[in-house]
Amino acid sequence: MVTLGPLDASHRGALLDLLRATGAFSPDEVAVALDLVDGAAGTPGTGTPDYEFVAAFDVDGGLAGYCCYGPTPGAQGTYDVYWIAVHPRQQRAGVGATLLDEVERRLARRGGRLIVVETSGRSAYDATRRFYGARGYRVAARLRDFYAPADDRLVLTRELGGSPSPAMRGV
Amino acid sequence: MVTLGPLDASHRGALLDLLRATGAFSPDEVAVALDLVDGAAGTPGTGTPDYEFVAAFDVDGGLAGYCCYGPTPGAQGTYDVYWIAVHPRQQRAGVGATLLDEVERRLARRGGRLIVVETSGRSAYDATRRFYGARGYRVAARLRDFYAPADDRLVLTRELGGSPSPAMRGV
Repeated sequence: MVTLGPLDASHRGALLDLLRATGAFSPDEVAVALDLVDGAAGTPGTGTPDYEFVAAFDVDGGLAGYCCYGPTPGAQGTYDVYWIAVHPRQQRAGVGATLLDEVERRLARRGGRLIVVETSGRSAYDATRRFYGARGYRVAARLRDFYAPADDRLVLTRELGGSPSPAMRGV
Repeated sequence: MVTLGPLDASHRGALLDLLRATGAFSPDEVAVALDLVDGAAGTPGTGTPDYEFVAAFDVDGGLAGYCCYGPTPGAQGTYDVYWIAVHPRQQRAGVGATLLDEVERRLARRGGRLIVVETSGRSAYDATRRFYGARGYRVAARLRDFYAPADDRLVLTRELGGSPSPAMRGV
């Protein structure tokens, strides 16, 4: 089991280790992820940060995973889940689902209507699409050859306020 | 007729006037647009700026319009057109089309494959959709109720390297 808590600049080293250990992110993507944690500042005047975080810690206090999410710019009640990453030694243990449940609860509490996740249509992302599909996310749009030839962009969405997903019923 | 040229921090005041004069942008959107011009810095290591600009100047040197565009993060050969704004006194004079032609030429020269424009499905954006539709952009995705209830997000795309649009043939 993991414990959820805030992610801040003190976790920067652990986050770098986690992102590298997954092998799923390019050096540029790792740099962007760290920048977001370093300098998460909101758009002036909006009163909400552009990027928010929740972290999962294992029994030894190690960083097991994290999720970065935030309000979709220019939209009302719509939120993007930008990143979910789980340390390889904790994968297949439900950490990702625990993080996503928590984010969905937080967003539902503040009146969120719609959660959006963008991913690739490539086979390397089959597990990602299955993860979201099992949690009630549906393919709302497919943009062919968007990321590169034969690499489609998929936009997955889930409406909040509908039926809870099976995993949430047991929480 | 207008003259195309670079947009830099010296045009900040004129750009603020232009954006306000259109009446099309919220104060937050105006602030974001100015931030991009102030601090357009690229993602470290990529060698390309995230946001690029082209401006149109009238015969008196006044700022008639501008376009902000850039490489779509994480994609190869795909570019977003983020903003096109034309001063109300220059609208319906082909300034927007001139700016978009220039951006398309620049992107085609560097091997761009796909141009992406995102807009709203609301009736207030009918003219925007007609503008892009007339220039070969097609609705690649519609995300219902994305921006707000009854406010869909449309993703318009045009492939580069195909047939030039009618307006480009005459250039």
